[in-house]
Amino acid sequence: MRSEHRCHRHRTAANFFAGSGREHEGFRCRPPDVVVFPRCVEEVSALAKVCHKHRLPIIPFGTGTGLEGGVGAVKGGVCFSLRNMEQVLDLHPEDFDVTVEPGVTRKALNAYLRDTGLWFPVDPGADASLCGMAATSASGTNAVRYGTMRENVMNLEVVLADGSIVHTAGKGRRPRKTSAGYNLTNLFVGSEGTLGIITKTTLRLYGIPEAMVSAVCSFPSVQAAVDSTVQTLQAGVPIARIEFLDDVMIDACNRFSSLSYPVTPTLFLEFHGSEQSLEEQVKTAEDITQSNGGSDFQWARDTETRNRLWKARHDAWYAALALRPGCKAYSTDVCVPLSRLPQIIVETKEDLIENRLTGPIAGHVGDGNFHCLMVVDPNNPEEMHRVHLFTERLARRALAMDGTCTGEHGVGLGKRALLCEEMGPVGIQVMRSLKDTLDPNSLMNPGKILQREEP
Amino acid sequence: MRSEHRCHRHRTAANFFAGSGREHEGFRCRPPDVVVFPRCVEEVSALAKVCHKHRLPIIPFGTGTGLEGGVGAVKGGVCFSLRNMEQVLDLHPEDFDVTVEPGVTRKALNAYLRDTGLWFPVDPGADASLCGMAATSASGTNAVRYGTMRENVMNLEVVLADGSIVHTAGKGRRPRKTSAGYNLTNLFVGSEGTLGIITKTTLRLYGIPEAMVSAVCSFPSVQAAVDSTVQTLQAGVPIARIEFLDDVMIDACNRFSSLSYPVTPTLFLEFHGSEQSLEEQVKTAEDITQSNGGSDFQWARDTETRNRLWKARHDAWYAALALRPGCKAYSTDVCVPLSRLPQIIVETKEDLIENRLTGPIAGHVGDGNFHCLMVVDPNNPEEMHRVHLFTERLARRALAMDGTCTGEHGVGLGKRALLCEEMGPVGIQVMRSLKDTLDPNSLMNPGKILQREEP
Ligand SMILES: Cc1cc2nc3c(=O)[nH]c(=O)nc-3n(C[C@H](O)[C@H](O)[C@H](O)COP(=O)(O)OP(=O)(O)OC[C@H]3O[C@@H](n4cnc5c(N)ncnc54)[C@H](O)[C@@H]3O)c2cc1C
Ligand SMILES: Cc1cc2nc3c(=O)[nH]c(=O)nc-3n(C[C@H](O)[C@H](O)[C@H](O)COP(=O)(O)OP(=O)(O)OC[C@H]3O[C@@H](n4cnc5c(N)ncnc54)[C@H](O)[C@@H]3O)c2cc1C
Repeated sequence: MRSEHRCHRHRTAANFFAGSGREHEGFRCRPPDVVVFPRCVEEVSALAKVCHKHRLPIIPFGTGTGLEGGVGAVKGGVCFSLRNMEQVLDLHPEDFDVTVEPGVTRKALNAYLRDTGLWFPVDPGADASLCGMAATSASGTNAVRYGTMRENVMNLEVVLADGSIVHTAGKGRRPRKTSAGYNLTNLFVGSEGTLGIITKTTLRLYGIPEAMVSAVCSFPSVQAAVDSTVQTLQAGVPIARIEFLDDVMIDACNRFSSLSYPVTPTLFLEFHGSEQSLEEQVKTAEDITQSNGGSDFQWARDTETRNRLWKARHDAWYAALALRPGCKAYSTDVCVPLSRLPQIIVETKEDLIENRLTGPIAGHVGDGNFHCLMVVDPNNPEEMHRVHLFTERLARRALAMDGTCTGEHGVGLGKRALLCEEMGPVGIQVMRSLKDTLDPNSLMNPGKILQREEP
Repeated sequence: MRSEHRCHRHRTAANFFAGSGREHEGFRCRPPDVVVFPRCVEEVSALAKVCHKHRLPIIPFGTGTGLEGGVGAVKGGVCFSLRNMEQVLDLHPEDFDVTVEPGVTRKALNAYLRDTGLWFPVDPGADASLCGMAATSASGTNAVRYGTMRENVMNLEVVLADGSIVHTAGKGRRPRKTSAGYNLTNLFVGSEGTLGIITKTTLRLYGIPEAMVSAVCSFPSVQAAVDSTVQTLQAGVPIARIEFLDDVMIDACNRFSSLSYPVTPTLFLEFHGSEQSLEEQVKTAEDITQSNGGSDFQWARDTETRNRLWKARHDAWYAALALRPGCKAYSTDVCVPLSRLPQIIVETKEDLIENRLTGPIAGHVGDGNFHCLMVVDPNNPEEMHRVHLFTERLARRALAMDGTCTGEHGVGLGKRALLCEEMGPVGIQVMRSLKDTLDPNSLMNPGKILQREEP
C-alpha cells in the first residue's frame, strides 16, 4: 500500500467546475486518506472487508479520466487504485469475447488484440480503463454503430461493500444473451463505484472491418449538418462514427492540430464494412450531405491520415483549453432525441454568445449527444457563475426536450440535483433503496450519484 | 372486474411440464382468485394499492404466451390482465421511437407502423404483448441483428407493489443513450412481473430495410450447419436471421406446413439491407455454406414466399406437437458461447436418442441459443420423468460450457433451482435483496424466479 495520491488533471478540472455549482459540500480536489494498490480480487475483497469493519469509505479508481468528479474522496477514506491488476484474461476469439482486469485500458486491450482480427470498439477518446468505462457506462464516438458499455458488457466480477464477491451473470458465464433472473450486469454498469468495485469485466468483441474510411464535410449551418446526420441514419447507413464540431470547435482544432478545415459547422464521419459496402454507404451519405449544402468529402483513407483525423477529434478537449491558456475546462453532456438536436444546438450557441462564454461544441450527434467544452478562468468568480447558470439552463433545455442531462459521463458529484429533476421523486427513491440495500453503510464512493448519504 | 380466467394453452403446457420437475409445490394450472382488467395506469395503481393493503398477490398477465409458467397464480391472488390497455402512444418516427401500452402486441404495433417505413424487429414468433416481452426479456429470430428486449427498451412506466408509479428513465424521456444513475430500465426488463407491473414501454424502432431475402440451406451434419453460422458471423455478415432446424424438426415442419425440404440439418437465413449490400451478404454466406458442404440456397424473395417460410419456422412448436397427437410440449432454452454449439447439439441429440425422447431442435444459433421442443405424453409418468432428467442434464451441459439455462424464456417456476446453480449463492442473494427491497411483502408474482417467498 502507498499513501500517495496523484490528482489527475481532468478529474481536478471536473471537481473544480462541479464546485462552482450550487451544491457546496466537498467539491474541491479531495484526496483520500490512503491509496491501496491491490493485485488480485482476493486482495480487493480482503481490503474491502477491512474498510467495512472500520466503516471507511471506499473509492474505486480506474485511470482517473472521468469527468464528473467521481473519484474525489468527499468523505475521506480509502482509494482503491486498480492499476496493478492489468491482465487480459480468457480471450475467446471464436466467441467474440474477452475478460479483463480493471487495470487494462481500452488501448492496451486493442493492442493485445491486434493479431486476432478482433477489436473492442467503445471509445471515449481518453485511454480509460475498461472497468472504469463499465463503471461510468461510457460510450463515445463509435456508439452509434456498436452501442455503449451497456450493450457490450456481458459479465462483471464485483466486490461488494462487505467484501463479498459476486459475478453478475454467474461465474465465468458468457452466453451472448440470457434471461436468467434480474439483470445484475446492467445494474452495476453505470453505478460509478457506488455499489461495488468492478474487478473483472467480460466484453463483446467485434471483427475488425475489412475496410474503413473517414471523411470530413463542412456545412453552411448547424441545421444542415444535423439534418444530414438524421437523414443518414434514416437511410439505414450503418455509419460507424458521425461527429459534429461547431465553427468554434473546428477553429480550435485547426489551431491545435495544425489543420486547415473551413471554419463552419463540420461533420467527421467514419464508415466500416467491406470495400463494396463502403462504396455504397459513402455514396448515400455524400448524396445526403450535398443535398443539405455540405462540401465535398475530404478523405482520409490510409490508416495514418485516419488516425490523424481522429486524434484531432479526440484532442478537442486540449484544443479547447488552448483557446485560453491558464483556464480550465468543463464538459457538459446532454443527450436528446435526434429530431431535437438542431434546435438545442442553435439555442445553446445563442446562449453562449449572449453570455460571453467560450464553449466550443463537439458531439456524438448520431446518438443525439453533444458536449460544450466550457473554457473558463478559475480566478474569475463572476465568469464561473455565468458558466454555472449556463450549464443548468442547458441541462434543463435537454430535459424539456425529453432528453437527459448526462448522455455518457455519468452523474458523479455535479449532476446529482439535475438527476432528481430528470428522474422524479419515485425514481430517485427506487435508486436510493437499491443503494441502501447493496451498501447499507454508505461506504461505496459516498456522495456520488445520490445526494443524501447518511444511512 | 371479471373473475373468469382463461387458461392459455401454452401456459398450461409450460406449467404442466414444469410440474413434472423436482419442485413440487404449485405447478399445475393455478388460476387466480380474481382477474381485473384495468384500462389505464391510474386504475392499475389504484388496484395495486388495494392489493397492497389487503396483502393480495398480484400476477401481471400480457398475452399468456410465456413458456415458463410465469402467469400461474401459485399463491392465488389477483391477475392483472392488461389487454384493455391497448393504445399506441407517442410515435416519433423521426426519432425512431414509440411508446405502447401493455395490451399492444408485436404484430399490432407493426401493423400500426406499416405506413411509416419503420418496424419493431424483436420477434419471439408468438404474437406476444410488447410489455410481456419486456417482462421476460424476450428475443427470438431477429436478435442476432437487432438485439433482444434488453437493447431495445428505452423507458418503462411501472406500477410498484405499493401502487406507486415509476418511470425507469424519467417520465417521457427517450434519449438514445443515457448514463443518468442506476439503469432501472434494465432492472425491470426481464423481471417477469416480480418487481412491478409494466404499464408502458418506450421502444427503439428501425427503418424497414430496402430489401429482404430469405433462403434455406441443407447440410450433411449439425457441425457443418453450425460451423457455417459461426463463420458467417465471423465474416461480419450483418445477417438478420439464422435459424437452425435439425432433421427431426425439418421433417415435422415439412409435414405440418406442407413443405419438402431435405430431411437433414438445415439453416433458414434472412438478409436485410440495400439491394447491393444484400448481394454481397448472400455471396459471402453462400461461399461459406458451400465450403461446409451445404446445398445451394433455396430462395424466398417475394414477401409471400418469405412469409410462408417464416410462418413454417414460427409454427415449429405446433409442428412438433403434431408429431404425437394428444401429447403436450415443453421447450428447453439453453444458450452457450458460439464455439460450443456443435458439441452441445450433437451431445443433446445423442442423449435424446439414447433416452427415446421426441425433442426436435430449433435454434437461434446466431446467438448460441437453441430449443428442444419436448413432445411428451402427459399420462405417462415414466416418460415425463425421463424428460425431466433430460432437461436437467441439458441445462447442466450448458452451464458447464459457460452458458445459461435460459437464453430468452426466463426463469418462471421451472428454472428456479437451476438459476441458483447458474448464479451462485452471492448472485442469488443480491437478486433476493433487490426483490425484498422493491417488494417487501412478496406480493408481486410470488414464487417466480426466486425460490423462497415468505418475507
Ligand atoms: C479528453 C477526454 C474525453 C472524454 N470523452 C469521453 C467520451 O467521448 N465518452 C465518454 O463516455 N467519456 C468520455 N470521457 C470520460 C472518461 O474517459 C470516462 O468516464 C471513462 O469511462 C472513465 O474511466 P476511468 O477508468 O478513467 O474511470 P475513473 O475516472 O477512474 O473513475 C470514474 C468513476 O468510475 C468509478 N470506477 C472506476 N473504476 C472502477 C472500478 N473498477 N469499479 C468500480 N468503480 C470504478 C470511479 O469511482 C468513478 O466514480 C472523456 C474524458 C476525457 C479526459
Ligand atoms: C410458439 C411459441 C414460440 C415462442 N418463441 C419464443 C422465442 O423465440 N423467443 C422468446 O423470447 N420467447 C418465445 N416464446 C415465449 C413468449 O412468447 C415470450 O415469453 C413473451 O415475451 C411472453 O409475452 P406475453 O405477453 O405472452 O407474457 P405472459 O405470458 O402474459 O407473461 C409472461 C411473464 O411476464 C409477466 N408479464 C406479462 N406482462 C407483464 C406486464 N405488463 N408487466 C409485468 N409483468 C408482465 C407475467 O407475469 C409472466 O411472469 C414463444 C412462445 C410460444 C407460444
